Formats: sequence, structure tokens, C-alpha cells
Amino acid sequence: MERRRKHWGWGYEDEQPSPEDLRGAARFLTGRLGFGSTEPEQAVALSEIELPAPRLSPPTALEPICATGAYQRALHCYGRSYPDVVRAFRGRFDHPPDVVVHPRDEHDVQAALDWALSSGAAVIPFGGGTSVVGGVEAGVGCEDHAGVVTIDLKALDRVLEADPVSLSARIQAGATGPRLEDQLAEHGLTLRHFPQSFQFSTLGGWIATRAGGHFATLYTHIDDLVESVRALTPVGAWESRRLPGSGAGISPDRMLIGSEGTLGLITEAWVRVRRRPNHRASAPVRFDDFTAGAEAVRALSQSGLYPSNCRLIDAREAELTGAGDGSYALLVLGFEAAEHDVERWMTMALECCADHGGSWEHRRDGDASAEAVGSWRQAFLRAPYLRDVFISIGVLSETFETAITWDRFANFHEAVLARVSETVREVCGAGTVTSRFTHVYPDGPAPYYTILAPARRGGELEQWAQIKRAASEAVIAGGGTITHHHAVGREHRPWYDRQRPEPFAAALRAAKAAVDPHGALNPGVLIDP
Amino acid sequence: MERRRKHWGWGYEDEQPSPEDLRGAARFLTGRLGFGSTEPEQAVALSEIELPAPRLSPPTALEPICATGAYQRALHCYGRSYPDVVRAFRGRFDHPPDVVVHPRDEHDVQAALDWALSSGAAVIPFGGGTSVVGGVEAGVGCEDHAGVVTIDLKALDRVLEADPVSLSARIQAGATGPRLEDQLAEHGLTLRHFPQSFQFSTLGGWIATRAGGHFATLYTHIDDLVESVRALTPVGAWESRRLPGSGAGISPDRMLIGSEGTLGLITEAWVRVRRRPNHRASAPVRFDDFTAGAEAVRALSQSGLYPSNCRLIDAREAELTGAGDGSYALLVLGFEAAEHDVERWMTMALECCADHGGSWEHRRDGDASAEAVGSWRQAFLRAPYLRDVFISIGVLSETFETAITWDRFANFHEAVLARVSETVREVCGAGTVTSRFTHVYPDGPAPYYTILAPARRGGELEQWAQIKRAASEAVIAGGGTITHHHAVGREHRPWYDRQRPEPFAAALRAAKAAVDPHGALNPGVLIDP
Repeated sequence: MERRRKHWGWGYEDEQPSPEDLRGAARFLTGRLGFGSTEPEQAVALSEIELPAPRLSPPTALEPICATGAYQRALHCYGRSYPDVVRAFRGRFDHPPDVVVHPRDEHDVQAALDWALSSGAAVIPFGGGTSVVGGVEAGVGCEDHAGVVTIDLKALDRVLEADPVSLSARIQAGATGPRLEDQLAEHGLTLRHFPQSFQFSTLGGWIATRAGGHFATLYTHIDDLVESVRALTPVGAWESRRLPGSGAGISPDRMLIGSEGTLGLITEAWVRVRRRPNHRASAPVRFDDFTAGAEAVRALSQSGLYPSNCRLIDAREAELTGAGDGSYALLVLGFEAAEHDVERWMTMALECCADHGGSWEHRRDGDASAEAVGSWRQAFLRAPYLRDVFISIGVLSETFETAITWDRFANFHEAVLARVSETVREVCGAGTVTSRFTHVYPDGPAPYYTILAPARRGGELEQWAQIKRAASEAVIAGGGTITHHHAVGREHRPWYDRQRPEPFAAALRAAKAAVDPHGALNPGVLIDP
Repeated sequence: MERRRKHWGWGYEDEQPSPEDLRGAARFLTGRLGFGSTEPEQAVALSEIELPAPRLSPPTALEPICATGAYQRALHCYGRSYPDVVRAFRGRFDHPPDVVVHPRDEHDVQAALDWALSSGAAVIPFGGGTSVVGGVEAGVGCEDHAGVVTIDLKALDRVLEADPVSLSARIQAGATGPRLEDQLAEHGLTLRHFPQSFQFSTLGGWIATRAGGHFATLYTHIDDLVESVRALTPVGAWESRRLPGSGAGISPDRMLIGSEGTLGLITEAWVRVRRRPNHRASAPVRFDDFTAGAEAVRALSQSGLYPSNCRLIDAREAELTGAGDGSYALLVLGFEAAEHDVERWMTMALECCADHGGSWEHRRDGDASAEAVGSWRQAFLRAPYLRDVFISIGVLSETFETAITWDRFANFHEAVLARVSETVREVCGAGTVTSRFTHVYPDGPAPYYTILAPARRGGELEQWAQIKRAASEAVIAGGGTITHHHAVGREHRPWYDRQRPEPFAAALRAAKAAVDPHGALNPGVLIDP
């Protein structure tokens, strides 16, 4: 039998820790954080949940690929943001999709779309369901529709063609990170796009949301890895040519990339892949504080060296993730290449760090310094699992990220930290706000903030909303972007609407109306009809 | 008095060679090419040209910045493609703009736009007027309007802010290459975007047309250098935030980049600049033939070394430009950096070339190998001037460029060369078709083709149209893009319309209607209203 994903949180049902393990984790985490409960709550069982009756019933021809049972509807009700998991944990599924379709191929996708449109339903494209911004949620924006049909693309998970000459591959949109990497590996190729959600998120989802990936510099977003893309819209297939570069008017790909399911269902794409890296070097570099580290990272980002990893983590976050002792900021620096040794690059990058006060231990394979890098990486990958645990032990956890130019960074960072820390104190009485750079550019960093605070059981959603509002206000007031790589969805809408140029909004609204005349595709996301 | 640009061709009036010099050039060029006339024709003088009377007269308030005289109207009638210059050379100015406005600042741009819209006129944004695709021409698409107002932005030519911390600068759209580089140099900065039209083309034009620039790899298009952009549309200002990166929905910048004046008039942009390079290395590498060179370039493009120059020139083109003797293909390879020595990079790149049969002489500053690179660079920069000479001596000259993935390149290249060569022979009886790579990507090259052939005096436009059609058909049938960096304009429309996805065309049409309800902005370009 297929492993089932948890209907309320991250991972598979069989990965849910036992009550005993959970109590152990609770003791450990509350000890480290200084707050939270050592008595974990349990999620409301699916059997105790009553969902509203489906408003739609699929036609006979589609029945084999349609689900209307509680598990599938609950599983597809939310993404995996903190408020999503809180609601699901407590058994609140007020607006589940009426029908979940699992197309086996593009033909099925077309049939599902046709039926949904003819039924007056809203259509929510669903990849890994890992949105943290309400991107797959039927609750907001779908009120005017006869129902909600969620189209889950996970069965479209194949690498259809590999082109080792051009280093490209044609991949179906529903392929998760591991699925596509496994298939590419058979050709000695790799996409090397590793967002935190890698295990479950899909190529189509990455493209629809402009996901940020593995590389800290240069090719940071999936945008740069897309060679061509194919989507089904209500007015026909939108498919671009495979081109390494083009100057033919406005890029059609760039209009689909970031469209978050509002213009069409992405079914496949040609992406730029690479040979598996044979050469790697990595080092943890210590800085007295985040500010000193940031200056080094600025120099690195402007050096033309393009490190593949260049994540600066503040002292407290390094400590919380076991990558430091809290007395220094840590830069996780790395280079990788398939074709040539990278030692020369690393040497130059370390020289640059030394110029800015960075220090590191003598590098050897498998030594303590590699351990720090490893600790951080493990913590990074386990974070979504941890979120579930946090909820059960009454710890509020939220992250947000942005980007800002270097000239404004110091003031911006100070203002955001101050505003959010103050709000966390007001709302939760205690808590930590830590930060790191996830990606860096010659003209500025992408700072990422993590909040951990004591939650009021049953009051988490209100607490979260207040903190989210304060954070978003601080980001927008300071000149940042409401999201660097987590998309807009429904949760970021108020601030996104202020960020974007008004004539662009008008253009986008009209463009959507042209390809989606009934406003059926992911209503409420990005734009109102 | 200000130097006046030639109303019919490239450069300034005072640069036009004397009849004697022209005869000398004619003897040299016809000798080298084996065709063309040694008796140059002269362009029809402006005084002999009668233009249709202007259909519009500007309001008093705008009079100081409006021109309706023959020189300005003729100068702004065309871009600088071969058929443009042929028509201008022969005194054919059938559809000049009625009024040419020279705004002094953005306020003037707004006033000019308001007046033009209220007059029912079409509005053509004009930067350097160097379009080779009919991008600034009033002849096609403007028939339904009460007249044509060309807005020449060249007075908006200042670097308004330089941010050496973020390596960014805010620059007005009308700044030409030399103007903006001169001002950036005061801050030790450079944009390093050097299209062939550099001398006259403008930042706004580059952004509007997705111009390709200096760098052969990595940051090839202006697209990647834009941090934010501001444009005036009929429904208000479209201005994005300064952001080093963002994932907030569809990129508003990417919708203006490549819009070719159809959505708004770009007035300024923040662009990513860099410190002036202190370290340079360059080498001419010889290959037995273009195919062998292409394999080396493919390896280089996939090596992660990112040479700043990586132009492969076929044997005949190398000979014609004085960079070779016709017996070998030439790769002009170069690295540059501000922060670090580039010898290591060059060494690795040359090793890669050697692996693919490339050879080079021992490199020394100022030696014969540097001469080959210099010869080619000179020829590159003089090419637009040469086009004028070619027309006067009855030589048809045309270029076109595309991009294609590596797996399809060999067949594509062969098919394009065969089709175009055959058409050139049929239409002109003789001629050469040569090629080079202008930019290369990990997934494919951007091949650029140059045609030189004996023209039938007075019949050039028909000859050109036949050749252009054959070339465009071959490119589109072979799976390429109709343009890699010369835009769509009016001349590429039939093939561009076949290239782009139909739902995208519908979205674009609707987006334009939303921000330009009267279809006044550059009608005929990219889309029909």
C-alpha cells in the first residue's frame, strides 16, 4: 500500500513520532527554547472530522480519477504554513475542495479542467501542497463558484526526455524533487534545485511560485532554469519554444513563471540541468556578528566568484540549529563544479572573508567544521517536520523572507527586527527572532527571519496574524519585497497589492481575464477577477 | 552648434566620407568581396525631399519642445535596418511622424503623452533610433490614428543616482551608451553593456527591446541588469521597487522588458553596474572549422567558467573582417574581472579549447594575436557605418540572429545556411553568408548571420524582402527564435506571431488594452490592438 501523507502536517503518517518520542522532543525543545509545553497535544484524528458535503459530483468518465472522501479532501484543504497546520491539527477544515482529481496524464488534466469549467467550479492546481502562503487553499476567493475542484498533478512525475548535449530535460510538472533527481541521475544529470520543501514540492509548483533553490548566488530562482514551459489554459495550451535565450518581445515564459496557477495549469517544462558535481569545497566561517558577516557576504556577492552556498546565519539561529554556540555568526560557504576543481575559488573566497574579519579552522574532510555545516543542513531539512512538533507543544513558529539592496540593508534589518521582536513580545510575552541570508546578489541580500515564541493554545491563529501583519508591514514599509521565494498566494495579498505597480496590476487582471474568462483558476491568488 | 546625425544613415553628418574617400572604399570593398560598384551613388539630399504636411500641430505650451521641420521628421522616420537606410538614401519618406517631441524631463514626457493621446495620435517612443526591425517606424500600424507623434527621449540622459554600495545606478532612459558610461566612470562604475549600436542606442531602448550586450555568457541581455524600471503608461506610472531579487508573482519588470514601447514610455531605470575591470585576458583561438569550434564553445558554455567574451567567427567572416585569412574559424575568448586575476580562468578555458582541437600562439600583450582580436572588434564597431557605404556601392547587407539548443544546432545551422545561401544566389546571383556566435548559453548558442551580396540598384527592397523572408522561414521552421537580441518590431511580426504561444498573445493583447486603451503606443509592434 502507498504511504499516506499526514492529512494535517508534514511528511508521512508513518513518520509521526509516537507520544513517547514526542514527549522526549518536547523536553529537549522547551529546554533549549525556554518556553513551550512538555505535554504535547495530539492532532484531531481524521475519523473525528466532519467535512461539509461535496457540492459537485464528477461525471462517470472522470470517476476513476476523482476522490471525494474525507482523507483526500482534508489533505488538499490547506498548504503547510503555520496557520494551515494549526487549523488542520485542530480539525478545522471549513472549506475543503469538493472534488480532488488525480489525473494520470495531460489528457486527464484537460478533461478535469473542461469538466470543472463547465460546472462553474473554481480550479486549484496542486503540486506538493507545500505552499506556506495559502496558495492552494479554497477558503478565500472561491465563494462565487459552484464548488472547488483541486487538480493534484503528482502522477505526472516523469522525466520525459533528457538531452545531455544541451544539458536540458523535459519533465512533467508533478515530479517532486526526489522523483526528478532520481530519474535525472540515470543520465548523470541533476537539476540541483533544492528548496526546503524538496521532498514533496514539484517542478510545476516551483515554476508557478518562482521558487528559490539550492544556489545562493547566480541561478537562485527556478526562473533561470526554465528553458520552456507548457500549461493548459481555459483557452488552449500555452507552450513556448525551447530556446537557450531570446529577445522576441516580452518573455512568454516569464509571464507563466510566478503566475501561481492563475493563468493555467503547468503540465511540463524543459529545464536546464547540469552534470553531477565532482568537485566540492565547503567551509564554515565565523564572524563576530551578523553585521560583520554581512559585509563579507556583500564583498563575496560582488566578487564574481559565485559561491554555490553562501548562507550567513546569525549567532542565535546558529546556536538553535546546533551549528554554533551562540557567540558568533556563521557563514556556510561552498563551491561545487562538475568540470573543474574549485579550490582556487574557495581560496579566493576565504581571503575575502578574512579581509572582513572572518575566521575558520583548518579545513579537513570530516572534521568539526564540516560538522557545523552538516548540523545546519540537517536542521534546514528537518524544519518542516519540526513545525508539526512545535504546534503540538504550543510553540508558535513562523518564517518570512524578503530582499533588499545593500545600501538599505542595515537600517532595514534593524527596523524589521525591532518591529517584529516588539510584536512577538507583546503578543506572546517572549520568543526569539533570528535571521539568515538564504540567497545573495551583487546588489543585495535575501534575509530570512524565523520566529519562535510561546503560543496560547487555541489562540495561535490570532497571535500568528498579529505577528504576520507586523512583519509584512515592516518589510513593505522598509522597501523590501513581500516575498523572495515563498510566493504571494492569498496570505501576502494585502502587502503584495501595495508593492506592485498599479498599471501592472491592471495589465495582469486583463491578461488573466483573456485566458481565464470565468476567473476559475486559483481565484483569490495574486489578483481579483 | 550641436553635431547633427545623418538623416538617412549611421553616424553624424560630418562623418560622411567625401566622394573621393567613398570611391577609395568602393575600390577596396569590391576588390575584397568580388562584387559591388566602384562608382558610389550619393544619398538624396534633404533639400530635395518633400514630406507630407504634418497632420497635427502641437499646443502652444509644447511648442518649445516640438519639431515639425523636414530634418527632424526625416531623422525620426525610420530605424537603421538595411531597408530603412535604402529608403532614406533614396529620399523615400512616405510616413514620417507628424511631430517630433524632445522632452527635457519626465514632466515633458507626460505632457507630450497627454497631448498625443488627447489628439488621437499614435505615439512612438524613440531612443537612439537604431532599431533594425521597424521598431520606431510610423509606416505600419498607425493608419487608424489622427497622426503620429514621436517622442525622442535623448535629453533624458543623466545618471541620477549612483549607489556604489549595492553597485546600482538610477539612469534616465535616454542616456546613450557613451553618455551613461562617462557619468558612471566618475564613480568608478560601469554598466558594460556594449551592443553594436552602443554609440547611439539608449538604456530605455535596450530595456524596451531586451538588447544583448557585451557579455557572451551569463549576463547576456539587459534583462539581467535591470533592478527596477519606471515607465509612463496612459493609465499612470508603472514603477517597480528596487529589489535584488523577488518571487512576488509574475515579475512586473519582465513585463516591461521587451514591451517595445507598446505598454509605456520607459523614463528611467535602476540598473546593476559593476566596478571597472582591472584584470583582463583575451586570446584568439583557431579551429579547423566552425563545427569544431562550436564543440569547444559548447564545452566552454557548460564549464561554469563564464568567459566574458566567447565569440566564434567562421573562417570567411574572420577573413572579411581582417581577423583571419579564411583558412580557420576564430574564437575570440576573453575574461575580465574587477576583483581578481583571471589567468586561472583563461588557462582552464584554453585547456578546454585544446581538448577540442583549438590552437593559439603564445600570448603576449600587443602581439599578433591581440591584433586579430582588435581587428575583429574594430570591424564590429564600424559595421553600422559600413552599411551606409554598402548601400552607396550597390551591396546588399543584412544580418539576422537567433538562438537554438545545442542538440539541434548542427542541423539547424546547415539548413539555415543552405536556404539563405540558395535564396541569395537566386535573388542576387552571388554573395556570401557568414556566421558567428554572439552569445552562448549552457543549453545552446545564439548564431548570427551576415549576408553580403550584389544589389540591383533600385531593386534592393524587393531583394532584401525575399532574403529576409527565406531567412525568417528557415529560422522559425528550424525551431529557433525570430530574434535573439534585435527585437520584433514590425519587420519580424509574421514570424513572431507564429513563434509565440497563442494564449500568451491573447494575454498580451488584453494587457495592452488595459494600460493603453486607445492602442496609441507604438501600434503595429508586437501585437495588433
